[in-house]
Amino acid sequence: MEKVKKIKAGDVRTASRLIRNLEDGVKEARSTIKHLFPLTGKAQVVGITGSPGAGKSTLVDGLVEQFRKRGKTVGVLAVDPTSPFTGGAILGDRIRMQRHAEDSGVFVRSLATRGALGGLAKAVGDAIHVMDVMGMDVILVETVGTGQQEVDIINHSHTVLVVLIPGMGDEIQAIKAGIMEIADVFVINKADREGSSKLRREIMAMLDMAPPETFASGWRPPIVRVENAFEPDSFGKSMEELTDTIAKHHEHLVAKDLLGSRIRRKAAVELHEAIRSCVLEPILNHLVAEGEIEGMIQKLMDKKTDPYTLAEEVARRFLKEGV
Amino acid sequence: MEKVKKIKAGDVRTASRLIRNLEDGVKEARSTIKHLFPLTGKAQVVGITGSPGAGKSTLVDGLVEQFRKRGKTVGVLAVDPTSPFTGGAILGDRIRMQRHAEDSGVFVRSLATRGALGGLAKAVGDAIHVMDVMGMDVILVETVGTGQQEVDIINHSHTVLVVLIPGMGDEIQAIKAGIMEIADVFVINKADREGSSKLRREIMAMLDMAPPETFASGWRPPIVRVENAFEPDSFGKSMEELTDTIAKHHEHLVAKDLLGSRIRRKAAVELHEAIRSCVLEPILNHLVAEGEIEGMIQKLMDKKTDPYTLAEEVARRFLKEGV
Repeated sequence: MEKVKKIKAGDVRTASRLIRNLEDGVKEARSTIKHLFPLTGKAQVVGITGSPGAGKSTLVDGLVEQFRKRGKTVGVLAVDPTSPFTGGAILGDRIRMQRHAEDSGVFVRSLATRGALGGLAKAVGDAIHVMDVMGMDVILVETVGTGQQEVDIINHSHTVLVVLIPGMGDEIQAIKAGIMEIADVFVINKADREGSSKLRREIMAMLDMAPPETFASGWRPPIVRVENAFEPDSFGKSMEELTDTIAKHHEHLVAKDLLGSRIRRKAAVELHEAIRSCVLEPILNHLVAEGEIEGMIQKLMDKKTDPYTLAEEVARRFLKEGV
Repeated sequence: MEKVKKIKAGDVRTASRLIRNLEDGVKEARSTIKHLFPLTGKAQVVGITGSPGAGKSTLVDGLVEQFRKRGKTVGVLAVDPTSPFTGGAILGDRIRMQRHAEDSGVFVRSLATRGALGGLAKAVGDAIHVMDVMGMDVILVETVGTGQQEVDIINHSHTVLVVLIPGMGDEIQAIKAGIMEIADVFVINKADREGSSKLRREIMAMLDMAPPETFASGWRPPIVRVENAFEPDSFGKSMEELTDTIAKHHEHLVAKDLLGSRIRRKAAVELHEAIRSCVLEPILNHLVAEGEIEGMIQKLMDKKTDPYTLAEEVARRFLKEGV
C-alpha cells in the first residue's frame, strides 16, 4: 500500500493527513490502520498526565530536548479531551513546540474530541500507531488527567508520569486525580513553590498506604522534583533526571517481563474503542441522518416515553436476535 | 408500582437502593426509572464543576445551607468520574456533608464509574430523576470538570457554576477547563488568595472575546467571588450572593423561555447514554461471558489481526443487515 510505504519512510504530510482523518473518523483511514497495525510495537510510549495548569507542556518540551540529545526521534501527541469547546490550549502547545519545528526528528500532533460520539482514546491509539510506524523511538502522550476517558488514553502508555504542583488547595488533588494508581513516576513540578515538601510527604504517605501487591514487581514509583522551568540550568538537570527515570522504568518492565501486560492493557483498550466505534456509530449516524433523533427527543420532552424504552426499541431494531 | 409510590413519598432507603442499582446497571432498576420518568421535571438542577482542589465540596455545603434557609429541600449528587481507582474523595465529601445528615430535607448521594463500560452520565441523569421524584426542590450536581464525559454530566443541569481558584500556574486552567463555554455563573473561590483580580480580569477578557451570539439571550455569566471558607461571616455572605445569582439565572431562563432548550439538551444526552447502554453493553457482556475477549486480545498481541477487523466482525455478527 502506497500510504503505508510513505508513512514507513517518515513522510510527515501523509502521516498528518492520516491522523486528521482518523480523528474525524474517516472510514478509509481505518483501512490504512489495518495495514499499519502489524508494523507497530517498536516505540516506547510515555504518558504524561496531571491537572490543568500543572505545567505538562513545558515538561514535554524539556523531555523532547533530552531525548533528542540522546539520539532518539520523538513523537508528541497532545490530547485535549475538553474540546470541541476550546482550541486555545492546543494552539498554545503548538506555539510552544515551534522551536522543534525545524527538527525532522520531532513530530508533533494535537488531538481533540470532535463531536459527541466519543472515541478519543481510539484516535489516540491510532495516532500512536502512525508515529510508531514512522519510526519515532519515543512517543510522548500528554493529556489532562481526570476522567475515565483520560485513564483509557493513558492506558496506551508503557510508562505513565503523573505531574503535580505544590499548593493546590487542600492537596487533595493528589487523591482526586484518580490516576494515582496508574502512576509509574511522580513529578512534582514547580517544586520551588511553597508546599513542595508537603506534597512530597503526601505522595509518600499515599504510596505507603497502598496495598502490598501494588509494588509486587519491585517498582515503587519514584518522585522527581522539577524546579523553576525558567532557570535553564536547574530545569535541564531535572529533565535529565526525569529522562533517566523513564529509561529505568522501561528497563524494569523489560527485565521483569512486564511489558507484555502493558501491551495487553493497550490491546484491550483498543479493542473496546474499536467495537464502540463499529457498533454504536453506524446506529447513531443512521438515526441522525434520518432525522429520527429529533422526534425521539421531542417525545422525551413531552414525557410521552422514557429514554430506556426508546433505547430498547433501537436495540431491537438494530441488533440481531439473541444478543 | 410500589417502589414508585415509596420514592414519591420521599423514602430514603428505597431511593438510595435504586440509585445504587442504577449505578451498577441492574436491569430491574431501569424499569423503575421508566415509571419515574413521567413524574420528573420539577426540580431545579444546578451543576457545579471545576478542577480538582477548587473547593467545590465546600461550596456545595454552603449552598445546601442557603437553600435550606430559604425553605427548599436539596438533593446533592457528588460525581467522581475518576473511580474505580479512588474512593477517598467521595468518602471525604460524605464526611463533610455529615452535618446535614439529621436534616430530612437534604439527600446526599455519591456516584462513581464502576467498570469500564462508561455510562456515568446516564447514571447521573437517572439519579437526578430519582431525587426529582422524591420531591427535592433543588439538586446540586458536583463533578470534576475536564472531559467530554463531565460535559455530558453537566448537561443535565439548568444552571452551571464553574469554580476557579486564583494562582493556578499560568491561569490557563481557565481556558483548558473546556467547560468555560457552558458556564452560566463563574465562581472565584478562595478569592482572598493572591492572583484573584488577575483571574477575574482573565475571565472578563475571555467573555469579551466570545462571539456575540454567545450572550444573545441577554445573560452574560456573572463572576461571584467567594472569600475564605473558614470565616463564617464573609463565606455566608458570598453564599447568599451566589444563591441569589442562581435564582436570577433560573428566572432568566424562564423569562426568556430558554428552559426548554436546556431540557432538550438534557433529553439528548439521556437518549444517547441509554442507546449506548442498551446497544453496546449486551454485546460486550456477551463477549466477556463467553471468554471471547481474551482470545481477541491475544490475537492483537500476536499481531495476527487488528482492532478494526475484529470490531467489524463483531458488528457483522451482532448488528442486523443494512445498518
